[in-house]
Amino acid sequence: MVMTSDYNKKRNDIIKELTTFKKIDYSFSDGHILGSMCSAPHPIAREVYIKFLETNLGDPELFPGTKQIESNLIQFIKELLHAPKNATGQIVSGGTEGNITAMWIAKKLSGKKEIILPQSAHFSFQKIASLMDMKLVSVPLTKQYTLDFTKVNGKITKDTAAVLGIAGSTELGTIDPLPELSDICFDENVFFHVDAAFGGFVIPFLQKLGYDVPEFDFQLKGVSSIAVDSHKMGYSAVSLGTLIIREDKWLDLISVESLYISVKKHAGILGTRSGGPVAAAYAVAKYLGMDGYKKIVENCMNTTRYMQEKLDEIGLTLIIKPTMNVLGVKLSKPDIVAKRLSENGWRVNTMNHLSCIRIVLMPQITKEIIDEFIPILKKTCEEVGEL
Amino acid sequence: MVMTSDYNKKRNDIIKELTTFKKIDYSFSDGHILGSMCSAPHPIAREVYIKFLETNLGDPELFPGTKQIESNLIQFIKELLHAPKNATGQIVSGGTEGNITAMWIAKKLSGKKEIILPQSAHFSFQKIASLMDMKLVSVPLTKQYTLDFTKVNGKITKDTAAVLGIAGSTELGTIDPLPELSDICFDENVFFHVDAAFGGFVIPFLQKLGYDVPEFDFQLKGVSSIAVDSHKMGYSAVSLGTLIIREDKWLDLISVESLYISVKKHAGILGTRSGGPVAAAYAVAKYLGMDGYKKIVENCMNTTRYMQEKLDEIGLTLIIKPTMNVLGVKLSKPDIVAKRLSENGWRVNTMNHLSCIRIVLMPQITKEIIDEFIPILKKTCEEVGEL
Repeated sequence: MVMTSDYNKKRNDIIKELTTFKKIDYSFSDGHILGSMCSAPHPIAREVYIKFLETNLGDPELFPGTKQIESNLIQFIKELLHAPKNATGQIVSGGTEGNITAMWIAKKLSGKKEIILPQSAHFSFQKIASLMDMKLVSVPLTKQYTLDFTKVNGKITKDTAAVLGIAGSTELGTIDPLPELSDICFDENVFFHVDAAFGGFVIPFLQKLGYDVPEFDFQLKGVSSIAVDSHKMGYSAVSLGTLIIREDKWLDLISVESLYISVKKHAGILGTRSGGPVAAAYAVAKYLGMDGYKKIVENCMNTTRYMQEKLDEIGLTLIIKPTMNVLGVKLSKPDIVAKRLSENGWRVNTMNHLSCIRIVLMPQITKEIIDEFIPILKKTCEEVGEL
Repeated sequence: MVMTSDYNKKRNDIIKELTTFKKIDYSFSDGHILGSMCSAPHPIAREVYIKFLETNLGDPELFPGTKQIESNLIQFIKELLHAPKNATGQIVSGGTEGNITAMWIAKKLSGKKEIILPQSAHFSFQKIASLMDMKLVSVPLTKQYTLDFTKVNGKITKDTAAVLGIAGSTELGTIDPLPELSDICFDENVFFHVDAAFGGFVIPFLQKLGYDVPEFDFQLKGVSSIAVDSHKMGYSAVSLGTLIIREDKWLDLISVESLYISVKKHAGILGTRSGGPVAAAYAVAKYLGMDGYKKIVENCMNTTRYMQEKLDEIGLTLIIKPTMNVLGVKLSKPDIVAKRLSENGWRVNTMNHLSCIRIVLMPQITKEIIDEFIPILKKTCEEVGEL
């Protein structure tokens, strides 16, 4: 492809058009997206992503170097989650694909179709039910919005394929009683999947920082698989997650024969997939290391506390005391408040079923941004009669 | 994130390490990857991809501009495939996800689980069978490696959820008898999915160039859905495909409620997904336009013919006369030839079940590259006794 002046002219027109669209988007970099569990990627992620853009890990023998980076990333995540030696990982596009893949394995392992899960399960489980014809058996929550373990009793039956526990719920960042769930699943020999899409890069560091959080990873003997997203608190680029499974042989259950690509067996849901996000996530993990992630979690928890204090000062209350850097702010009309904020350039997520807005204190949210946001939130709440 | 000298030092070390891995990869740019259906992306794709890297179309109200670009891309693909007004598109990561999504819709529409498909179906259908507990009813091929329509008779029953036809098979780039399949599916009211992952950006232009190829798109009244990949002959970056479905209301069948992102209904398999590949594919489509794609297909068919002649000159024969820019080269020991070529830096794909290697004449493969390759192929074949 020769770069001619004709190329430049056409290129400029297209970039101009796309830039017009881009300007309508909200942006992570100004800190005005307060409700998302993603962020702008770490600078090294951008640089590395584009370098590996054209690699295709769906055809790994063409890209043995990138495949090695993928193995290194999986190794890093295994260490993060204290995975045993026999464990392996499957790179996925994020928590949704991680959850689907885990349930695919559980279905194949057990030959059964019921999933026992907390009411707060991510909506990807609705997809799983529809796609895979699995049945969701819902367990009510405690007043702290975690799975009520006393209600699990009797739900595990001969039809149970898997139990789900959440380590950092999408709604409020809560952690289910994972040690108890692990024990019962171990005793009953039932597949136990932990959705740590958000919490996987938070909880290990909360533990190191002295917060009182339960064990959540493969140190619990009943845990069969954990999904964790590098594109959430792993500070890398969308879309990249990892599903770690306790036994590498389980991958065979979701592998099919491939007759015309470079490997003869192909595991997992997707085919062609870029090595870009994989190399990016590895570069960020390598750049930050465990100490870097600990520092990020420390900072996020500090801004979380700061946000809490400021909300308290203007008279707003939380649904529950936060476990991690996720806040549910009680409102009687969350949709109206969110809409008004949106018109002023700020984005929070609404959860009408909990009558709250969600604010996630991602790494890019600073105290300065909070100081800018709070008066606008206050004014908005006053205008619509929330305060 | 402040760029300090400390950042630069660490950054340089990581880039150095990753570059070492990258050097082990084969590369599209030198033309030595001859077996893949992907290529290095068009230059404008790279530039645009990174610009939209952080956007998340899984949470579209945060990125209304990028969402609009997605709609424009879908509109372009709809026009390419002569989709009717009621049709809509679902952006997917590629043919595999497109096929899964189509079969998900077919299963929901029909309440049935059998898929009638040619023996040459992509291996993603093995995944579909395993993931969704669907049953594959295989139809034998003709000597031209297309679905043998005379063998379909009696296979469509009350249990049929869908019929699959291929427009550009992964093995040999063949096209199934789509008009005949369309008619029978229309008459029997059965969902008819066309896998045009490779051929979707080829066949429309072969038609314009005067090649004798059958109708394959929504002009056939029985066609229910078509999957096409921008990252194959669409000349954009991995991973990006589009599934076009005839009736937009079918999306409701694969939509679930989402309680905490910006939209209340969410269709399709994956959750978080970057707008990068979407904006890139749109930029390439806009840059090339229908005329640009026609020119690319014309060039690819010219190099295909050139490769054919050169293979003929050294005494190698093809499995079948090619329909598009995909060649199956007969060998008695394709694996051994491919391994030797690989050791010399050239990659072709092997298909042992057809006793051939696959060569795909993607846009980056020039006559010069063919002239470089042919003597090496000849020498290799002589060394292992193929010639």
